[in-house]
Amino acid sequence: MLQPIAGHVRVDFRYAVHFTNDLFALDNTLLSRVVREAESDGGAFAKAARVMWIVDQSVDDCCDVKARIERHFAARPELELAGEVLLLEGGENIKNRPELVLQIQTAVNATGLDRHSYLAVVGGGAMLDLVGYAAATAHRGIRLIRVPTTTLSQNDSGVGVKNGINAFGKKNFIGTFAPPYAVLNDFDFLESLPDREWRGGIAEAIKVALIKDADFFEFIEQNADRLAARDLKAMGRLIHHCAQLHVRHICEGGDPFEMGSSRPLDFGHWSAHKLEQVSNYQLRHAEAVAIGLALDVNYSALQGWIADADAERVTGTLEAVGFELWAPELGAHADDPEHPDSVFRGLREFREHLGGQLTIQMLSAIGEGFNVHEIDEALMLSAIEHLKARAGAAMAVA
Amino acid sequence: MLQPIAGHVRVDFRYAVHFTNDLFALDNTLLSRVVREAESDGGAFAKAARVMWIVDQSVDDCCDVKARIERHFAARPELELAGEVLLLEGGENIKNRPELVLQIQTAVNATGLDRHSYLAVVGGGAMLDLVGYAAATAHRGIRLIRVPTTTLSQNDSGVGVKNGINAFGKKNFIGTFAPPYAVLNDFDFLESLPDREWRGGIAEAIKVALIKDADFFEFIEQNADRLAARDLKAMGRLIHHCAQLHVRHICEGGDPFEMGSSRPLDFGHWSAHKLEQVSNYQLRHAEAVAIGLALDVNYSALQGWIADADAERVTGTLEAVGFELWAPELGAHADDPEHPDSVFRGLREFREHLGGQLTIQMLSAIGEGFNVHEIDEALMLSAIEHLKARAGAAMAVA
Repeated sequence: MLQPIAGHVRVDFRYAVHFTNDLFALDNTLLSRVVREAESDGGAFAKAARVMWIVDQSVDDCCDVKARIERHFAARPELELAGEVLLLEGGENIKNRPELVLQIQTAVNATGLDRHSYLAVVGGGAMLDLVGYAAATAHRGIRLIRVPTTTLSQNDSGVGVKNGINAFGKKNFIGTFAPPYAVLNDFDFLESLPDREWRGGIAEAIKVALIKDADFFEFIEQNADRLAARDLKAMGRLIHHCAQLHVRHICEGGDPFEMGSSRPLDFGHWSAHKLEQVSNYQLRHAEAVAIGLALDVNYSALQGWIADADAERVTGTLEAVGFELWAPELGAHADDPEHPDSVFRGLREFREHLGGQLTIQMLSAIGEGFNVHEIDEALMLSAIEHLKARAGAAMAVA
Repeated sequence: MLQPIAGHVRVDFRYAVHFTNDLFALDNTLLSRVVREAESDGGAFAKAARVMWIVDQSVDDCCDVKARIERHFAARPELELAGEVLLLEGGENIKNRPELVLQIQTAVNATGLDRHSYLAVVGGGAMLDLVGYAAATAHRGIRLIRVPTTTLSQNDSGVGVKNGINAFGKKNFIGTFAPPYAVLNDFDFLESLPDREWRGGIAEAIKVALIKDADFFEFIEQNADRLAARDLKAMGRLIHHCAQLHVRHICEGGDPFEMGSSRPLDFGHWSAHKLEQVSNYQLRHAEAVAIGLALDVNYSALQGWIADADAERVTGTLEAVGFELWAPELGAHADDPEHPDSVFRGLREFREHLGGQLTIQMLSAIGEGFNVHEIDEALMLSAIEHLKARAGAAMAVA
């Protein structure tokens, strides 16, 4: 018989996460520099870089993004605005609208974008995920420039290598792994965020601090009041450090596309995904994650893996930055693990999405995560009861 | 301002192309060995590998594949059949049916496949492309096992890293780069192919021989009669060598996902894609490629880049294995390059799909391709006229 042929495909993706203010100011050269880098290393020819823009409607409403993009491009001959700036209504719910992917790809086709052109997107995490998926699958991948506008997308989802939309009632059921071409974090967008969005990124920062970086947790703990008071400098430091931990995890973890047994940074997320879904996305991702963190921190304490005092530091910090650590969805059907809306169904869906054995991170100390492969449901129910009682006590005091 | 964060994502994909006969025979252990490799290197746990199957209806009709898969799986405890074997009508036209992608992903969801499960597909290139796209985007990528059933998919499309479907009247407008988990080439499937399908893989073998490997061209030239007479041993050697050239090009070319200026093996393809489309896929891919090869070989001769005698060797070999080197679609509107059905529109679409500058391969010798960045349309029109006259003369003789 003929010998097997061995294929070994090695792919290198390079990208940078940049930090700036007022990205579209006429004298801000970041965007031009970022696309010019491609010209020199791609062996391409000197002509304007074609960039098609998709902008979250609500970001345009507040920050006049479309007009500013148009002025920026009109002033810079090295940049060509491809087609009209497309305004799309943002929000987590867009990931339930696959027709938007087709709408974007229709525009990509109409505009004649090619694999050396750029699709740039201005918006929050859900918008970046959806547009990223459209970009990754048009022409088998157009260069994607992300301009995240929320704290959460600037320090977490927007700097990573995933995209996706929801399907069959499951988050991110459809998507790909596809590193962006570049990420441009403009802190000015953060000023106009509503409080709920402002604190969004803090939950994921606490998450990554808890499993990886005790010093970072201490920074957040000590700056909780400043963060709650919308201190932009403290938030900038939080975003930069959190983004760095994320990029390092992806690039140095050895398995960026999660093909083997590598873990994404998903402490607290098994329940958070389910809570979001059951609440019909009335609970924002970060709000669900804050609850999920509190839950698994309390579970870790009940198991004796961390001290009660450490669990209290974490829940106290989450509360100090403004999160509520209880939602009715957490209690509903918790005693009926097979109910489709029970938080315990989240365990099964979590395992199925990642594949293989159930693997959940828990804490052995602040700054140190470890994996467990089963959950003691009775003890987890106690952790749920604990959060409920704590929330009830807080309400009684107030 | 905060320093940029540099991301460098390195991804390693390993897969093998295996050669076998009677893959589903009860004593054929290839499939079991292939999935067991994952168990040992993935750090996973000992349980049966879950495999969901999608089979081309016409292959099932001829070769009883569904029943044979069911028997194979029933006899092997290390393999678990996930869900029912799904039969889909194959053929190039399925790539125009995005609803089939949704159908497959619905089945993936219903079956509860995860990222450590396998989606296996039995069929020709179009079926592999469509199912590959569904697999690559479900759960951000399920392991794909390809069982190509045509000569073309065994030596070319099925061993590569691309998938896709058509959209907006353009081939492969939607798709991803995603290496398979494994490719299992079962030569027995080739015996029942109609002649048109049998010779399909020969066109792509001649293509890669012409630009890379003069010895391989000589092998094909010398075995043209045997190949035309359906000698399975000659075909096996052709497939193995051609698959090897393909895998080597992808893995050693330095740019497997074509992010930079790397060239896919697409000699003769700019016109072939267009001819397929204009003929509404009545011309099969390989038939269009054979014409496209003849066209660009003649163009290379008219330019003086190769000798007329070499062009004659190529066209003679293409004819000897059974290809017709003329189609009315090639002549229609050839004198009106802006007409949507003109073959010259294929140049623009080719450039747009690959991005960047127009780059077309031509021959400087048999076994040696080189890039050109513009096409002399008057000379190309002469090459078209030449093929037309040649076909007319052949018909007059017949």
